[in-house]
Amino acid sequence: MKEKQQNILVIGAGLCGSLLALRLGQRGYNVSVYEMRPDLRKTDISAGRSINLAFSNRGNKAMKLVGLENKVKALCIPMNGRMIHDKEGNTFQSNYSGRNHEYINSISRGDLNALLLNEAEKHENVSIYFNKKCKSVNFENTTALFKDYETKSEFIEDADAIIATDGAGSAMRKSYYLSKAFLFSFSQEYLTHGYKELSILPTETGDYKTYKNALHIWPRGSFMLIALPNLDGSFTVTLFLSYNEGDYNFNNLTTPKMVTEFFQKEFPDALKLMPNLVEEFFENPTAPLGTVKCSPWHYKGNTLLMGDSAHAIVPFYGQGMNASFEDVVEFDNILDLNLENWESVFKTYEDTRKKDTDAIADLAIDNFHEMKDHIANPIFQEKRKLEMAFEKIFPSEYSSKYSLVTFNDNIGYKKAMLKGRAQDKAILNMLADGDILISDDIKENELKIILEKVKNQTKAILKDDRIAGLK
Amino acid sequence: MKEKQQNILVIGAGLCGSLLALRLGQRGYNVSVYEMRPDLRKTDISAGRSINLAFSNRGNKAMKLVGLENKVKALCIPMNGRMIHDKEGNTFQSNYSGRNHEYINSISRGDLNALLLNEAEKHENVSIYFNKKCKSVNFENTTALFKDYETKSEFIEDADAIIATDGAGSAMRKSYYLSKAFLFSFSQEYLTHGYKELSILPTETGDYKTYKNALHIWPRGSFMLIALPNLDGSFTVTLFLSYNEGDYNFNNLTTPKMVTEFFQKEFPDALKLMPNLVEEFFENPTAPLGTVKCSPWHYKGNTLLMGDSAHAIVPFYGQGMNASFEDVVEFDNILDLNLENWESVFKTYEDTRKKDTDAIADLAIDNFHEMKDHIANPIFQEKRKLEMAFEKIFPSEYSSKYSLVTFNDNIGYKKAMLKGRAQDKAILNMLADGDILISDDIKENELKIILEKVKNQTKAILKDDRIAGLK
Repeated sequence: MKEKQQNILVIGAGLCGSLLALRLGQRGYNVSVYEMRPDLRKTDISAGRSINLAFSNRGNKAMKLVGLENKVKALCIPMNGRMIHDKEGNTFQSNYSGRNHEYINSISRGDLNALLLNEAEKHENVSIYFNKKCKSVNFENTTALFKDYETKSEFIEDADAIIATDGAGSAMRKSYYLSKAFLFSFSQEYLTHGYKELSILPTETGDYKTYKNALHIWPRGSFMLIALPNLDGSFTVTLFLSYNEGDYNFNNLTTPKMVTEFFQKEFPDALKLMPNLVEEFFENPTAPLGTVKCSPWHYKGNTLLMGDSAHAIVPFYGQGMNASFEDVVEFDNILDLNLENWESVFKTYEDTRKKDTDAIADLAIDNFHEMKDHIANPIFQEKRKLEMAFEKIFPSEYSSKYSLVTFNDNIGYKKAMLKGRAQDKAILNMLADGDILISDDIKENELKIILEKVKNQTKAILKDDRIAGLK
Repeated sequence: MKEKQQNILVIGAGLCGSLLALRLGQRGYNVSVYEMRPDLRKTDISAGRSINLAFSNRGNKAMKLVGLENKVKALCIPMNGRMIHDKEGNTFQSNYSGRNHEYINSISRGDLNALLLNEAEKHENVSIYFNKKCKSVNFENTTALFKDYETKSEFIEDADAIIATDGAGSAMRKSYYLSKAFLFSFSQEYLTHGYKELSILPTETGDYKTYKNALHIWPRGSFMLIALPNLDGSFTVTLFLSYNEGDYNFNNLTTPKMVTEFFQKEFPDALKLMPNLVEEFFENPTAPLGTVKCSPWHYKGNTLLMGDSAHAIVPFYGQGMNASFEDVVEFDNILDLNLENWESVFKTYEDTRKKDTDAIADLAIDNFHEMKDHIANPIFQEKRKLEMAFEKIFPSEYSSKYSLVTFNDNIGYKKAMLKGRAQDKAILNMLADGDILISDDIKENELKIILEKVKNQTKAILKDDRIAGLK
């Protein structure tokens, strides 16, 4: 394939689409991007949803690829760990890794998207059009139908290949599903919980009202509150709560009195920092939490789904954006293979990538339960303490599941999941059975013996699963 | 709820719908059933798909409930085990259980459905209408829109509650999905393989051309052929094959020569019994193999999905019909609780039942791999031999996964799956590690020791999974 002669149509100029456009532009393709929303560099379009995001190694790998690592670093607020808040307002910090250079970052979705759009538009072979909503894709003819929100007219665009990065509600995925032209496996799974974004505003002098460099969590078993810092001194707060179960839920929190009572009872220390709680609670939308998987992502060499349109996940591992960015890196690796045509590129990409995006979808649901529940559970805390010690004392010999997923971007999500789950199972069972005992003044050689036990037990678990034909 | 005053609309008069109508009729409800196809008692509507089915204990539980056990028995051909055919035409039988009274049956879908329709229509409070296709359901108003294929007109029916038993392509499920009125989790997953039905006709004297009382399997690793007996001396044969992978697949088997060559090479002994192979191969459709899961099944107390409309599964465990019949038994159990309204009935039914239909869906996919592949694998054969010995010598102490799923209808599919998978894992690993050694002249006391090892190891596996928070 001669790259410069190829016209690529990208649907959606969100984080994944704008990164993809930038990278394809760098590679010399003619890229046209159509986005249904207005240009976010000119209009505030956040509307109380996903104002900030967790940015970590897999995402950064993509920034390195396009040469933006330093510019993105300037937008980042490091979060070294979780700051857990109990009901009495006591806090304790649980770091993400025992290695000091491993941390995640809070970043503004809007700022990052704007940076990517600016960089993409620097390439004269990249054009971005806003207020153009994709209504459907004709994957046989490699054309897409758009509605122009400004002129109210509809038009059809043709291309050599169409890549849809139009998010969880993808128009192209809908065209695949409705056509029945081929067997399309598809799932949408909702959690029983929804979420609502709130905020902790800065102090009058513009300072942070609580500790800046952490992801704050108020775990309460069947629900939780979290907070991530923003550059302006505020925090974006998210409440994850059942729609209809438990004493307090989104369906019954209908009055200012009940909302205040709920926060007073469950999150008293947060409530003190949120004088605007009631107003925001009733102004901001409650949104569902869903996982989307599907296959095939591509139709012949004509069309391809990428990012959330192919694999929308729940936010609990902080990997949604990172996974979509890694999609672009993986796709770029496949382009480097110089395969004969788009069909080979798309097929090879899906064959390589899908197992990993399926894995992060499942891991994200695991972490929903871990964050709201397990992190307040003694045996999980014991495990976490042991893993921190392993990572600190033997940094090159051990990575927890969280580290494998978040910081070990040299391995795929699937491998991280299998190894990470086996490690968790090994440690939790050895702790429960009293096979390992840890004291605060444990010596390095004792810890080393425990590490070897954990490694051996992890290997045994993986081998047993393999023999039983389990994945 | 006063049962006699309630008008229930049932959509679909297939196996599940006609059984449900019969049972609700027996309980005194006013039942109207609308079926899109013609009356199968008057027209042959099989069209080369699913002519016979496996009928076993869970299905029989439902027949007992409605008093039809003996009438159904007369339609059954017992199959005591699998008859495995290798490429050289050698056969060996692998029984389904070490207990002689445990076997499955081949039964005609049409004959069984006709019996259920006849029995349902004996109740004057049950009416069945044919050639009426449900186009959509208004679940807010508890009404359904039908098209009458005879008069070409459309009409709306109202009811106190609507239960859709309209199969894998359910119109009501589609109404749930498209409405976006509530969060509807939904998945459709296709296997890479499709299936095609063929046949082995009787001899000229009406006899069976091969052994009658077995489910015949020609396992070939990535594809397989199976055959089930019919009362008329014929066998219904099904080819399970990839659409597009391997040397031979549904996409490339396009000429009589290739089809014959494929059978000559892979299934020579079957080919000898199938002089009409080529004709049938090109006349009969190739159909996909899909799994459907969804939730919620019900909308308030207005509507409910049941049978394949709620949980379509692949056919490899022979449990599709049995699961749908067990739905009716479970639903009947919930009705016995005399709950306050339909919403409580529907919710309690789904809460009780869904974990089990999810499990049988997953088990059926497991068995796809087991049937085409594992049963020709030495370590799986060794395991099977051991389990047969356990069931024969210690009949009250052990049931294999297959027995738990198929014959132990006192426990749900979920429990059968968890215990059965743990047993499989225990035995396969102990065999692989040389922890248990079996000889043909093993003594009863030696076998008893091995059984205790397997039981202990199974318990340990289940405990380890529980501690690790795995399901």
